[in-house]
Amino acid sequence: MRKEFRDLADPEEAHEAIASLDLRPADEVVPLREARGRVLAERVDAALDVPGFDRASVDGYALRARDTFGADEADPARLDLVGEVHAGVEPAVEVGDGECAEISTGAVLPAGADAVVMVERTDIEGDQVLVRTSLAPGDFVMFAGADVAAGERALGPGTVLTPREIGLLSALGVDEVPVRGRPTVAIVSTGDELVRPGEPLNADVGQIYDVNSYTTATAVEEAGGEARLYPHAGDDYEAMERLLREAAVECDLVLSSGSTSASAVDVIYRVVEEGGELLLHGVAVKPGKPMLIGRLEGSAYVGLPGYPVSALTIFRAFVAPAIREAAGLPEPRTATVEGAMAVRERYDEGRLRYMPVGLVTDGDGETLVYPVDKGSGATTSLVEADGIVAVEPDVAYLDVGERVEVQLFSTEGRPPRVFGAGEDDPALSRLLDDVARPRYLGVGTREGLRRLRDGVTDVAVAAGDLAVAAGDVDDGRLPADAVELGGWTREWGLVVPGGNPAGVEGLADLVDRDLRFVNRTTDAGLRRTLEASLDELATERGQDRADLLEAIDGYEYAVRAHESPARKVRSGAADAGLGLRATAEALGMAFVPCGVEPVRVYVAASRREKPGVLELATAVERAETVLDDLAGYASD
Amino acid sequence: MRKEFRDLADPEEAHEAIASLDLRPADEVVPLREARGRVLAERVDAALDVPGFDRASVDGYALRARDTFGADEADPARLDLVGEVHAGVEPAVEVGDGECAEISTGAVLPAGADAVVMVERTDIEGDQVLVRTSLAPGDFVMFAGADVAAGERALGPGTVLTPREIGLLSALGVDEVPVRGRPTVAIVSTGDELVRPGEPLNADVGQIYDVNSYTTATAVEEAGGEARLYPHAGDDYEAMERLLREAAVECDLVLSSGSTSASAVDVIYRVVEEGGELLLHGVAVKPGKPMLIGRLEGSAYVGLPGYPVSALTIFRAFVAPAIREAAGLPEPRTATVEGAMAVRERYDEGRLRYMPVGLVTDGDGETLVYPVDKGSGATTSLVEADGIVAVEPDVAYLDVGERVEVQLFSTEGRPPRVFGAGEDDPALSRLLDDVARPRYLGVGTREGLRRLRDGVTDVAVAAGDLAVAAGDVDDGRLPADAVELGGWTREWGLVVPGGNPAGVEGLADLVDRDLRFVNRTTDAGLRRTLEASLDELATERGQDRADLLEAIDGYEYAVRAHESPARKVRSGAADAGLGLRATAEALGMAFVPCGVEPVRVYVAASRREKPGVLELATAVERAETVLDDLAGYASD
Repeated sequence: MRKEFRDLADPEEAHEAIASLDLRPADEVVPLREARGRVLAERVDAALDVPGFDRASVDGYALRARDTFGADEADPARLDLVGEVHAGVEPAVEVGDGECAEISTGAVLPAGADAVVMVERTDIEGDQVLVRTSLAPGDFVMFAGADVAAGERALGPGTVLTPREIGLLSALGVDEVPVRGRPTVAIVSTGDELVRPGEPLNADVGQIYDVNSYTTATAVEEAGGEARLYPHAGDDYEAMERLLREAAVECDLVLSSGSTSASAVDVIYRVVEEGGELLLHGVAVKPGKPMLIGRLEGSAYVGLPGYPVSALTIFRAFVAPAIREAAGLPEPRTATVEGAMAVRERYDEGRLRYMPVGLVTDGDGETLVYPVDKGSGATTSLVEADGIVAVEPDVAYLDVGERVEVQLFSTEGRPPRVFGAGEDDPALSRLLDDVARPRYLGVGTREGLRRLRDGVTDVAVAAGDLAVAAGDVDDGRLPADAVELGGWTREWGLVVPGGNPAGVEGLADLVDRDLRFVNRTTDAGLRRTLEASLDELATERGQDRADLLEAIDGYEYAVRAHESPARKVRSGAADAGLGLRATAEALGMAFVPCGVEPVRVYVAASRREKPGVLELATAVERAETVLDDLAGYASD
Repeated sequence: MRKEFRDLADPEEAHEAIASLDLRPADEVVPLREARGRVLAERVDAALDVPGFDRASVDGYALRARDTFGADEADPARLDLVGEVHAGVEPAVEVGDGECAEISTGAVLPAGADAVVMVERTDIEGDQVLVRTSLAPGDFVMFAGADVAAGERALGPGTVLTPREIGLLSALGVDEVPVRGRPTVAIVSTGDELVRPGEPLNADVGQIYDVNSYTTATAVEEAGGEARLYPHAGDDYEAMERLLREAAVECDLVLSSGSTSASAVDVIYRVVEEGGELLLHGVAVKPGKPMLIGRLEGSAYVGLPGYPVSALTIFRAFVAPAIREAAGLPEPRTATVEGAMAVRERYDEGRLRYMPVGLVTDGDGETLVYPVDKGSGATTSLVEADGIVAVEPDVAYLDVGERVEVQLFSTEGRPPRVFGAGEDDPALSRLLDDVARPRYLGVGTREGLRRLRDGVTDVAVAAGDLAVAAGDVDDGRLPADAVELGGWTREWGLVVPGGNPAGVEGLADLVDRDLRFVNRTTDAGLRRTLEASLDELATERGQDRADLLEAIDGYEYAVRAHESPARKVRSGAADAGLGLRATAEALGMAFVPCGVEPVRVYVAASRREKPGVLELATAVERAETVLDDLAGYASD
């Protein structure tokens, strides 16, 4: 039967177990041209002088300084011009007493000369050069080795190679650089239900696309490792053992990830326990209880949890630091960010928790931190989760305003420029295309307004009767300080198959005829609009409301997003779905109009001047162009 | 003759001229696996539901919720176990009234079931499952589309693809992503004197290694462009024209860089003016006066200054933002950093100045900013220059403590963990290998102590008589608050060719015999030690000091670094050079000992607890291992 985890290890033990594994690959030599971001493995001392010769540092004339003694504007020194020297050419001239030679910046100082005068301080008179200033030996000459001298320390081991280090190595003529190797990381994806993106998916047998493999591979590369994806293994012991051993032989670290299936975890457990060394199974940390650490074929092995956000969390907290260490890379400046809790978060599980959080900036540009994903396992949480906050076991709650440090999932991570939540609406979706770095959660009108009231989001989008006028706030449906950015109307009704084969004419048909209906979930503003219309119908007919709803087959069959009912209809699962004219048009289906509902965009007053909000406001003002393209949409 | 620049353009005009150029390449499609860091070109809406089926979200039993009504610990519901469903397999069982089926996390909910009970809340009794809790329909079921619903907005255009976005696209089954193209940038290096790293260098004809090509190429790649290096062109018109046109046809932007030669600049100027469109030549900004902006073959053309730091400066201020814009990339969070001026900096040139600066952290972790490279053109300035500060034309000076914003040369840029300056010493060089991210400038003892007094550096390394005991500070040679970290002694003398063919026996030979000598420059502590010994010799002999020095052939022939005199001797340019026993040994030469001098490491008291200083202190404490390896070195 299913294997139960043994005593959970302390998170510190998990860090130590990973630290005890040897992920460090051999150093390697790379061409300078490909060395960007790599880490120098050894000290590089200069093997030559830079410049390698005494060099003019201006355009002018090479001369003997003593010949210019006492010269000035009024009383120039007169020197015979005896030749010229260009950069990259061996001087064919020698400079004697009372002589000079034209010289270009960078050219070799000719024999006999010990200084250069800038062309701006000279005049030509026949074959003579008038030098209108006095010079000292060495003036405007860069002596050999003055820049870098042979034998000097140039760069030390551990230096990250950025443009300027590449420049210094270029100056030294170095074209191959000894660098730290990048640890190779095998990504082994388990679970019979997983299909790699791009391959056909059969939902009937419960297949889903593999999220963790590419996510983890990308995170490995951000941390300085080299990720290799291995083909899916089934859950049987022999196939898994073969695959894991092969991966372990070929890579410095094996990460298994992807399966939520306990049997796959059991198989891996056995392979590592029997074929290698199991250091640790189960860590007292949330998430990550099922984490597994061991050795196989002399390589390191770490098993990540199956939920995408949990897998990234454990990767960020335990594995990324180990990969960076093995690659010789410092923790990047952008790996963490500080912020203040936007909401109060209770916690009393008695063990360390890595709390996935999202970031948002308030009106003053301060970073706020809010918890996301309470273990739902949803992929969409990935979009909202910017990183994790470590909450110690003895912390009972985090208060609003409390400072926390966020370990970001990506060094590219940063708060969205505008953060909104609310109704799922095709016009809004297009308007967001004109806003840089927005985050929008289609959680429905009611939830969108709630989040605005909670002070987390900048913007709420409401549809239906909750899209009240901005002045109309006393009923508490809107935050007291909400400002309206604008809005539009959209035509709603029943989406039916192309040609409307059942001849549906309106809502009454749902009640009176034998039609299968698909509804939206109660969070949608559109659902409330439907309810209001059905209430009217009940009143008109003098019928009991509950009886009327009962008569609609599928009224409780509710799906989440604006296209979902229509797609159910298209798949043949129903005859009519609640939806928009725009959706019917987009999916090539027929539409039975039932009415027009308002959609309004609200913003918290304190966030009104955020750059991202200003951008969204501009987009909303110019909404016509988008609305014109969408059937059934109109300006408010 | 040489072409003079026309009226200098305003920096704003230069930004506008670059903005008017079209660097934006066509969008492209890349495999998801290679999409990290790329920028989404179009909105991606979900084309399918995630999950695509109703899915168990725990391991347990699929059942009909109404069969568990009223069940609890004491009074469980008893259901017949009729089969099992695993993830990735089509359910072969249907669940009827009073029945249940074992189900794994992620498996398809079998027909008839509407909820799942966790295995932890059940017991097995024969063929029956005891369910010790009541369930509602939908409990522990993730409905099709609950995570992402088909038709929902997934990601917008302009999104930078990090692990989590890659994860979301994976979930949607997307394996090819439309992304913004990377602008291709041709790097054209000019100047007959430039040699590419790795190729042989002939210093006699004034050749130097090309620094700007690789530096600029690396910076282009950091900014999100794709750099292509073109072969060197000579300074003649036809060759240059052919090369520039070819580069312009093949790339979105051509950057010329590398030459300090006015003639090469002239040729480029003519090619762009005659074959394309010259928008601007010469900008009122320091450095960068010679900057050139134009169009050629429909592509953009920008000419950078020749000095490495100046080239990077103009690249950072004008070109990097344009490349990022063309690539659709936001300015990275790490592109700028704020700090306080460490020293007062006068300025009154009346035009915008991009001042190259270095960064250092003080004892409180605050970032300090100090000016570097006053136009010397030195490659080594690259190592000290972390970025630039824009100083407006009307600013007369920047005061100590004034807040400035630094535009970093690299997004990887950050202050050194320990910053020292002073004597060039092989033991120190090795000790620094054990310190993470040090910056050390071998500017000599005197200058090192001066910088420590100025409050810029953390550490000074002094040799010779300036390496006084730390308590002995009243003479002003040490900053009042300097703390000694430790030190060692090194044997100095004359480095002569192997076997000492001239039979040099000591300093007196330099005075009395016809020997060519090579000295160190006056900044070296070692030079002062030599001076003191020669003073003693003069006193012993009752000879005038000046006469004695005059008698040494080459006393004024001074070179910069610790190996430089020895290398001159080895090249045959001299018979004896001032140096260390360790150097003679390292270069396989003979050594005539003259004495032992102390080397001491001092740190500013306020910086004593900086992590980098602590690391250096540990390295100095453990210096023996390094000293044992170096001839003539000993513990202090």
